[in-house]
Amino acid sequence: VAVVGDVLRATTTIVTALAAGCRAVLPCAEVEEARALARSLPGKVLLGGERGGRPLPGFDLGNSPGEYTPAVCRDATLVLTTSNGTRALLHASSAEAVLVAAFVNLRAVCEHLRGEARPVHVLCAAEAGQPALEDVLLAGALVQALDADGPTQLDDSARLALACFGMYGHDLEAALRLGGGGARLLALGYDEDIRAAAGLDRFTLVPEVRRDPLRVVTITPK
Amino acid sequence: VAVVGDVLRATTTIVTALAAGCRAVLPCAEVEEARALARSLPGKVLLGGERGGRPLPGFDLGNSPGEYTPAVCRDATLVLTTSNGTRALLHASSAEAVLVAAFVNLRAVCEHLRGEARPVHVLCAAEAGQPALEDVLLAGALVQALDADGPTQLDDSARLALACFGMYGHDLEAALRLGGGGARLLALGYDEDIRAAAGLDRFTLVPEVRRDPLRVVTITPK
Repeated sequence: VAVVGDVLRATTTIVTALAAGCRAVLPCAEVEEARALARSLPGKVLLGGERGGRPLPGFDLGNSPGEYTPAVCRDATLVLTTSNGTRALLHASSAEAVLVAAFVNLRAVCEHLRGEARPVHVLCAAEAGQPALEDVLLAGALVQALDADGPTQLDDSARLALACFGMYGHDLEAALRLGGGGARLLALGYDEDIRAAAGLDRFTLVPEVRRDPLRVVTITPK
Repeated sequence: VAVVGDVLRATTTIVTALAAGCRAVLPCAEVEEARALARSLPGKVLLGGERGGRPLPGFDLGNSPGEYTPAVCRDATLVLTTSNGTRALLHASSAEAVLVAAFVNLRAVCEHLRGEARPVHVLCAAEAGQPALEDVLLAGALVQALDADGPTQLDDSARLALACFGMYGHDLEAALRLGGGGARLLALGYDEDIRAAAGLDRFTLVPEVRRDPLRVVTITPK
């Protein structure tokens, strides 16, 4: 079981979009691929994403969770391409099950994973191959919650994530502002996105990646 | 400036070997390359290293710091090949300066770096691409010491290392036993190596990587 987190902002946006009524989110690695896919789909389609943090020409939406309102999202299929998060989702898609996590649905993901017998891999989206503070923090929160449920075997990465949560978990929003990704968003004026990403347990849904075609759908609540 | 750490065991062994009288350590990525290099060198040459944690056939020494005594090492050139550590040294060798660090010479490295104006990169040797607890712990100890000397700019990896040191730094030997690499060494019977690697500030020397030919030599004390 893989759990993918890209707190700033792809997985926060995906959870928000599904909560707002999107039927499915189709992650795309490349911008042109996303444009072509959106054109090819029937029904109500939204094209969203970013490069360098900024919205893309001709796209309906950027990558700010606040844009994904019920009025915009209801019954839509969202085609999403982001710098790191959608690639992390694609990278994880060979796992038996791939869940999408953010702070906004942390408790729901933890409850879904309770009693899971298979190894759980938490995949943090990386910026230029470097771990992002906010994603390791999310991983640490997951490890702490799963570890509290019963005996677990942790690898060194999980121990590092736990240490990160121990040091930075007492103030999520401050941690999200402190990290390199948060600082870049603040410089671009996306303060609101950081507040949204720090909205712990705002939603109770668990998204999962499905294949053929590759898409993210809500599995809990059914 | 790059600082390379592979606490269990390559950089601990390199510092120990230099302290015991080796004139230089020549890191090699491959076993056969190490054998050929050792054969080609004049004077007193030692061939050391491991694969899978164990000593190699025909080698003079394994990768246990305790083997590198003054009686064995005096005035010798050590050709060393290890699974991860020597590769990390080779990987770092494009930096302007490359220092070799372990807990056994932590304070000496920190004092050498005091006032360094260039960016300092701490390179942790990785096992199968995964960070090792003991190396991130060393990185955290370095970050904490440099940060205490004056204002520093940290990236997210440095913040994670700092969190690791905050959680696991109070008992080095326990942390070294807890990590995956330590557990593998314990299973092979190398308890003594873990105690040696946890021997904080046992030596006051700073090794640096020199080029043409690539070698590690003591730069402080001169």
